[in-house]
Amino acid sequence: MSREENLKKFYEWVKRMSAYQMALALIGIDKQTLAPVDGSAFRDERTAILSGELFSIETDPEMAKLRKELLADEGVTGDDRKMIELYDHEINKVLSVPKDEYVAFDLLRNESYGAWLKAKNASDYSIFEPYLKKVIEAQKKMYSYRDSSLDLYDQMLDDFEPGMTREKYDVFFNRVKERLVPLIKKVTEAEQIDTSFIECEYPVELQKKYMDYMLEYLHFDKSWGYQNETEHPFTSGLCGNDIRITTKYLPERPMSALLSTIHESGHGYYMHQVAEEYDGTIFNWGISSGMHESQSRLCENYLGRSAAFWEANYPKLKEMFPEQLKGVDQEHFLAALNASEPSLIRTEADELTYPLHIVIRYEIERGLFEGTISTEGLDQTWDAMYEKYLGIKSPTARDGILQDVHWADGSFGYFPTYALGSAFAAQFVHAMRQQIDVDDLLRNSHYDVIMNWLKEHIHKYGCRYNADEIMRMATGEPFDPDYYLDYLEDKYTKLYHLG
Amino acid sequence: MSREENLKKFYEWVKRMSAYQMALALIGIDKQTLAPVDGSAFRDERTAILSGELFSIETDPEMAKLRKELLADEGVTGDDRKMIELYDHEINKVLSVPKDEYVAFDLLRNESYGAWLKAKNASDYSIFEPYLKKVIEAQKKMYSYRDSSLDLYDQMLDDFEPGMTREKYDVFFNRVKERLVPLIKKVTEAEQIDTSFIECEYPVELQKKYMDYMLEYLHFDKSWGYQNETEHPFTSGLCGNDIRITTKYLPERPMSALLSTIHESGHGYYMHQVAEEYDGTIFNWGISSGMHESQSRLCENYLGRSAAFWEANYPKLKEMFPEQLKGVDQEHFLAALNASEPSLIRTEADELTYPLHIVIRYEIERGLFEGTISTEGLDQTWDAMYEKYLGIKSPTARDGILQDVHWADGSFGYFPTYALGSAFAAQFVHAMRQQIDVDDLLRNSHYDVIMNWLKEHIHKYGCRYNADEIMRMATGEPFDPDYYLDYLEDKYTKLYHLG
Repeated sequence: MSREENLKKFYEWVKRMSAYQMALALIGIDKQTLAPVDGSAFRDERTAILSGELFSIETDPEMAKLRKELLADEGVTGDDRKMIELYDHEINKVLSVPKDEYVAFDLLRNESYGAWLKAKNASDYSIFEPYLKKVIEAQKKMYSYRDSSLDLYDQMLDDFEPGMTREKYDVFFNRVKERLVPLIKKVTEAEQIDTSFIECEYPVELQKKYMDYMLEYLHFDKSWGYQNETEHPFTSGLCGNDIRITTKYLPERPMSALLSTIHESGHGYYMHQVAEEYDGTIFNWGISSGMHESQSRLCENYLGRSAAFWEANYPKLKEMFPEQLKGVDQEHFLAALNASEPSLIRTEADELTYPLHIVIRYEIERGLFEGTISTEGLDQTWDAMYEKYLGIKSPTARDGILQDVHWADGSFGYFPTYALGSAFAAQFVHAMRQQIDVDDLLRNSHYDVIMNWLKEHIHKYGCRYNADEIMRMATGEPFDPDYYLDYLEDKYTKLYHLG
Repeated sequence: MSREENLKKFYEWVKRMSAYQMALALIGIDKQTLAPVDGSAFRDERTAILSGELFSIETDPEMAKLRKELLADEGVTGDDRKMIELYDHEINKVLSVPKDEYVAFDLLRNESYGAWLKAKNASDYSIFEPYLKKVIEAQKKMYSYRDSSLDLYDQMLDDFEPGMTREKYDVFFNRVKERLVPLIKKVTEAEQIDTSFIECEYPVELQKKYMDYMLEYLHFDKSWGYQNETEHPFTSGLCGNDIRITTKYLPERPMSALLSTIHESGHGYYMHQVAEEYDGTIFNWGISSGMHESQSRLCENYLGRSAAFWEANYPKLKEMFPEQLKGVDQEHFLAALNASEPSLIRTEADELTYPLHIVIRYEIERGLFEGTISTEGLDQTWDAMYEKYLGIKSPTARDGILQDVHWADGSFGYFPTYALGSAFAAQFVHAMRQQIDVDDLLRNSHYDVIMNWLKEHIHKYGCRYNADEIMRMATGEPFDPDYYLDYLEDKYTKLYHLG
């Protein structure tokens, strides 16, 4: 076949897969938002059938041959080549493992998840420990089949953020520890900020009304996006012009739904603004965790927690909740929104202490796979690190080592991308501020102009380029964690009036 | 292969198709309720791919051979045989037509729909007429490929209600005309009922609150059913335990959302209560139009418009809308809910005049396919029949012959099932009332017991048996339209105090 015919066949295969991916995405969204619970067994069985059909299409040997042929053809360049490479890379990960081992690993993950749930409920790490050990051993074996020049944990890191290695993360996390551990200590010793007025009853019906207003401010348009409620907020989408974000309302924590919505809308904008010709392809859905998180955190923290943002939006909030915010001026409100205090649960941590939660997980994962840390006694290792970096210790394993599901599920190398996202965001914002007046735009309800800058410098590429390439294109420099640490130091020094 | 192996293979094929059917059902529901409009093109293209994949599975020649083999095996009996027969019958309809003609027909339907929409907007039948003519000719050709001993229009009638023929419908509709035309005339001449208090502003937010209350009364349980809003209310489902009903709120017609919800919940209960082992098979989703409509109309008209129903529910309505219902007692309210007056639009017609709208469509369809009526001048034929049977005439084609989409879409033989459903329902209710005290159950919020009667006598069978068989099992008699006509005569004679 000619090159053109080969490419045509390749893109037909991509489109065929995208039909199944769309159906599975919708089934997933529906399951987590609206689907009646009694239908689960029926739906899950059919979902598995569709996943199986997609798997067969993905791993079609004829298509593997086609990709090989195309990649051997030097005339295949640019977007085409990159896309073929990405699909090939992803599918080879799966194909490298013998099928029965893949199935066995899935089974083990299920068991491990069950054990973790039981352990968490009983707050007893010893129930989970044998499974964690097994999952780690199994992952080592799964990765051993791959043809990679990277060390084991580096492969895992690369899976979630292509190009990142222990070497690079070490530099990043060492800087984080160096600068943030002492800063957090100072903040902890400073006079604490009153947050009581955002930790009281805000009726959910009214919160929803304010949310409608906020979605409008965010230019999150119903013609391409939709918000629903769920237990654990997430963002998904069927295509660039069909983005579904979700939120959860807590009656006594009004800022929770609001900030999580700004966060999820950041993921949503990313998916929405990838170049239209990449729609339904790996260039859109294959965006790395770190890059995705950089955009959600940029929106949540760098925009959504800023003074300019609330100059535009605080008056309306105060108008809708006059009792709760009586006597609270904007500065006071903003301080509460940004208050910091070391706490046990990662997902509830504030912007300043959050990266330390990640440092701990990174160092443990690294040790587990390098053999310097054992699963036995890991709960104590965990507690010691919390004590060391955050000065606190969980009274229970439930709120300690058992708080996250990731390891039970076999996900190692994922956590570090959360911290990386925040740091990427700082550098992006720094570059953006040199080109557009972000604060003025926020103040004057031109959130769309900010989103457009992100589109033109980041979003439109999808994962056609990796994080390092995008960082250089968007900011003119390689990734530099000091933008992030400078930002945090400046912000919290002012907020807590530190010397 | 052995019989067992063949059957196993057959049921695996059924389950595989059910996975695609589930995905397509969900995509359809989502499209009509939540999906952002800008994603349409992407979604539609992928939906077509999935439909194509399902089509390939359905029409797999190997499976046609398997069905033939199984049907030739006299040891294949009962549910197995019936199910194989039904799938075979449905798929042979499709397989009988050359593929290119099938595609051309789909295209023609699309064009015809466009022309109808244009004609309706312009209220000009002449725009639509040439397309209607083409669609009829095309349908004649499509049916000519089938191997059937039935006449053309009888085949169409049989497609929507297996076993029904012109001969049977003639008997039914002649009785309807004979008894209802004079009754409607009397009602029209009687003193009219005041309906103004249910044709005024009922705030939508409050209507929704009352709906929550109503869904509870209907025992429509969130664990297996879900209600959403849409433009044109419908019911769909992914399986027996995953039923989605929809509604539309009109600020000045509060009874619209309410009665349409009771109607849709009737469809929903049917799908929910088919025997669990038939889930995902043609025994559930293949239920005929007439039977389905019999259950939705039973709920809406025979239960939802009854005195006993409102004895339970009127107090709450009055409590929530004290201004609108000031001085309106229950009897007065019920009279308004059942008031009758000949009107132009079928979908807005009341219970008494509705069947005459269907008589008109039936007689026209019959004439079109028998060659006694032409598409030319059909708008005048239409108007003359409305004049004759209902004593009214539309000033515009928009509210006359162009009001329904069915014919533009190539659906002929469908309309008659709407009237049939109401008539079936009357006979079912008559039988039910001999076994359980329906009014007492309605009064005391035991709607679930009524639904359970329907389950045990009708729903659980799905379409394992046809309408005639179910009618005999549930009522001990063949279908007799006089139950229906007696019911209407009795009800409207009392309501309008006719002599």
